[in-house]
Amino acid sequence: MKELIYHRMLLPAVAQNADRPCATNSGTGVTTTFAEHLDRVGRTIGALQSLGVGRSDRFAIMTLNSLEYLELYHAAFLGGGVVNPLNLRFAPKELAYVLRDSGTKVCFVDAFFAKLIDSVKEEAGLEHVVLIGAGDVPHTVNHADLLAAAKPVIPDEGEETDPVVLMYTGGTTGLPKGVLLDQRAELLNAYHVMMRLQFDRNSTNLIQTPMFHAASMFAVLGGPAQGAHTVILPLFDPAAVMKVVKAYQPTTTVMVPTMIGMTMAHPDFTPEGLGSFTDLVYGASPMPQALLEKLLALYPDTDIWQGYGMTESSSVLAFLGPDEHRAGGKYLRAAGRPLPGVVLSIQDEEGNMLPPGEPGEVCARAGNFMIEYWNKPEATAEVFRDGWYHTGDAGYLDADGYLYLVDRVKDMIVTGGENVYSTEVENAVALHPAVLQVAVIGIPSEQWGEAVLAIVVLKEGATATQEEIIAHCREWIAGYKLPKSIEFRAEPLPLSGAMKVLKKDLRAPYWEGHERKVN
Amino acid sequence: MKELIYHRMLLPAVAQNADRPCATNSGTGVTTTFAEHLDRVGRTIGALQSLGVGRSDRFAIMTLNSLEYLELYHAAFLGGGVVNPLNLRFAPKELAYVLRDSGTKVCFVDAFFAKLIDSVKEEAGLEHVVLIGAGDVPHTVNHADLLAAAKPVIPDEGEETDPVVLMYTGGTTGLPKGVLLDQRAELLNAYHVMMRLQFDRNSTNLIQTPMFHAASMFAVLGGPAQGAHTVILPLFDPAAVMKVVKAYQPTTTVMVPTMIGMTMAHPDFTPEGLGSFTDLVYGASPMPQALLEKLLALYPDTDIWQGYGMTESSSVLAFLGPDEHRAGGKYLRAAGRPLPGVVLSIQDEEGNMLPPGEPGEVCARAGNFMIEYWNKPEATAEVFRDGWYHTGDAGYLDADGYLYLVDRVKDMIVTGGENVYSTEVENAVALHPAVLQVAVIGIPSEQWGEAVLAIVVLKEGATATQEEIIAHCREWIAGYKLPKSIEFRAEPLPLSGAMKVLKKDLRAPYWEGHERKVN
Repeated sequence: MKELIYHRMLLPAVAQNADRPCATNSGTGVTTTFAEHLDRVGRTIGALQSLGVGRSDRFAIMTLNSLEYLELYHAAFLGGGVVNPLNLRFAPKELAYVLRDSGTKVCFVDAFFAKLIDSVKEEAGLEHVVLIGAGDVPHTVNHADLLAAAKPVIPDEGEETDPVVLMYTGGTTGLPKGVLLDQRAELLNAYHVMMRLQFDRNSTNLIQTPMFHAASMFAVLGGPAQGAHTVILPLFDPAAVMKVVKAYQPTTTVMVPTMIGMTMAHPDFTPEGLGSFTDLVYGASPMPQALLEKLLALYPDTDIWQGYGMTESSSVLAFLGPDEHRAGGKYLRAAGRPLPGVVLSIQDEEGNMLPPGEPGEVCARAGNFMIEYWNKPEATAEVFRDGWYHTGDAGYLDADGYLYLVDRVKDMIVTGGENVYSTEVENAVALHPAVLQVAVIGIPSEQWGEAVLAIVVLKEGATATQEEIIAHCREWIAGYKLPKSIEFRAEPLPLSGAMKVLKKDLRAPYWEGHERKVN
Repeated sequence: MKELIYHRMLLPAVAQNADRPCATNSGTGVTTTFAEHLDRVGRTIGALQSLGVGRSDRFAIMTLNSLEYLELYHAAFLGGGVVNPLNLRFAPKELAYVLRDSGTKVCFVDAFFAKLIDSVKEEAGLEHVVLIGAGDVPHTVNHADLLAAAKPVIPDEGEETDPVVLMYTGGTTGLPKGVLLDQRAELLNAYHVMMRLQFDRNSTNLIQTPMFHAASMFAVLGGPAQGAHTVILPLFDPAAVMKVVKAYQPTTTVMVPTMIGMTMAHPDFTPEGLGSFTDLVYGASPMPQALLEKLLALYPDTDIWQGYGMTESSSVLAFLGPDEHRAGGKYLRAAGRPLPGVVLSIQDEEGNMLPPGEPGEVCARAGNFMIEYWNKPEATAEVFRDGWYHTGDAGYLDADGYLYLVDRVKDMIVTGGENVYSTEVENAVALHPAVLQVAVIGIPSEQWGEAVLAIVVLKEGATATQEEIIAHCREWIAGYKLPKSIEFRAEPLPLSGAMKVLKKDLRAPYWEGHERKVN
């Protein structure tokens, strides 16, 4: 089958929009038209072929967001190879592992990452390091030269089941695993999203999440396929976002809550700062309720969406839509309802389906799931059981089909025989006016098995004692869920490349010499 | 592959909306909830199995629109059989042919059609005629008894490539051909449509086009799958539509232009008559420009859509959207832009792709096309050539990707060596204030090969001569396109079940003893 392949989306869009703007790098101000974009994508494929990369071979990218990043993605989707987009936070050991595990021989870098890649080149078994842009940094080939010498090639249409993305999931838990996705999964994800969130040639889509992340995928694919103008922010920072909003008036974007929070907390922030969006999607990590309410109050006319999903599902499984955001109340605690094409269920440890209201593991079936974890049949078999993908998230569905997440299964704390969902405790702590950041973890306890610990960063100039914060939480949550202790930190909590708090790193020092059981 | 099957759409919708209204028959006022609907669909499948109909066996329906029609469709889509929805205008000979050609053994009828089906029962080889509703009419089984005795059965999920609809195309050209469609084609059609035209559980979808027609298909599938309330009008008539609009305030509907025209021309019509729709889709036959302008002026807040497609594509290939309708001008002459997932091209007789602006045959590739014409490998091979479906429509694409139709290829008139598109002449004639209805055909002419003839019905009380109408046309179209003669008729032009003028029937008496060459 050939219908759910990117040839069928991008090529008609180019034909219909040849001279219209396809993509702009907001850092350099460079814009390519659709015709220019396709020409550059074709040359990129020619260049990949000249480096020995065929349709099923992997190539990697480690650069800031850029036009070239988009071109490399589209090159892969038109049959130029399997793209391996590297997490910019990967440590050298992780990088070497990921490159070797995937059999990647060609890596595209920019001046920011060339040295790092060079330092692992040998260990990773890389043959070519292609430098995008200028820079006096180690590399083997120059991207501009390569493209100038290459003939544009658009390979024949492949099959829906051709692998096209190998995306290693960020290191929040253990060594990264390669998520292998095919054309069909990526296109169905884009279809499912576009049955809710529409864009067309009048849209301007701002990509500000890192392009290695699954959260960027439907913008990477869906925007250009609809003739939309894609504006690419090389690297998120609040001032840059506000500048881009002013300059390009983007209509659609995806942000993680941390990005929204940082932008709205910036000293130069005014409502115009995020004021051009007709649709704003957030997701990938929990949204603090106070921030969400502030956002909704400030932008009553913007359609606000929450996305829930994961790399393994090419990104989105459920959306909480604008109507629910405007209705407020209990809906603001929901993660949304499944997209058309996605079926959700809640299962217990034996795989029994649980009725509405009962929490268990969130499971899903849909056409947008990965083929497998690359070279990991056991890990693959562990997540796909009886035809259902097991997300590792704990949650429940209500009778109306809304999904409520209670925690990551592995972040759930078992204390004195009771299950405590860390996010619930975090929400309570976060409501204390002095608290800037909080993460709740379980630490070993002889008395309780695990004890609830809250790690807190206070707002600048604010003060609060352990006793005050615990007393505050007592108003919001049951006694057995209260933090047994609070650890105050002066520096920000460690974040993953996707800007999630790295609880694994927070837990590590406490669990040295102990073994933690995770369901 | 099992993702693009209706199990994955309907069953979650039922789980999320069990006690909400699923469907209402506006004639009887009966409403079923989603839970009741699924129970009845399950019993219908049980009943089909008791009559010997398995997953790949055909069963037919010849009834007015009804709840049972929706249940029978959904029974087919959940693995209960292949549904053969019969055109209510089929003549006995056509019916007998269609039933025998398809190998249909079971036909569902209501009191309106029971006698007709009985009259062809033997010739058709029918074994069971199931009567829906009451009536002292010939039948072999009663639907209510059958359902009461049946156990609800929901068969296991099938495959995307399982055939599910065998829809014989209306008799506008030759003997009807069976269009065999699978789950995947029907679901992709619904997906493509829903990437433009959204509905959700807050929508109320009015089905007023006949349910045997492809134009009803995305309402049949997509509405219930999104938790929308489906209101079913048994049989179109203008007064009934206005009553239903008042009573149920439907938000979405599909109408053919004739239905819109008849409703707006009704003596009791007021703007409230079609006033509840947020989205109104028209299609299936050309829209007179004056009517469209009247509709747009009267309903500036309604999103008006034009659909272009055919039974072979499970219905829709292109939409002309609300923005274009509001922009007006040249856009009102367009048939729209291809839906996401659909690729269009214009080809000459040798299959060469033509550049923007040049008219030729409209060709398409998309996941929503039929498997084949049932038992007609040659007819199938004739329409699918080099991977493109050939629509038989003449048209061109502009540089922006808008499709403009000029005619059916077989309605094109070759006169004195020049191609004349009949619709262009019809548009000119229709602008004469005395003209109610017009159809333009080619008739044999020794001098010209074919001569242009306009068949005209005048408005009540209006008068016009042949000379006056031709003189009027001279202001709008080139001399060689002018009608050589006008035939005035007192009675309305013959319409197909889909309310298209039957040009074949108009041409027949003129062409007796002549052979007409069609490209």
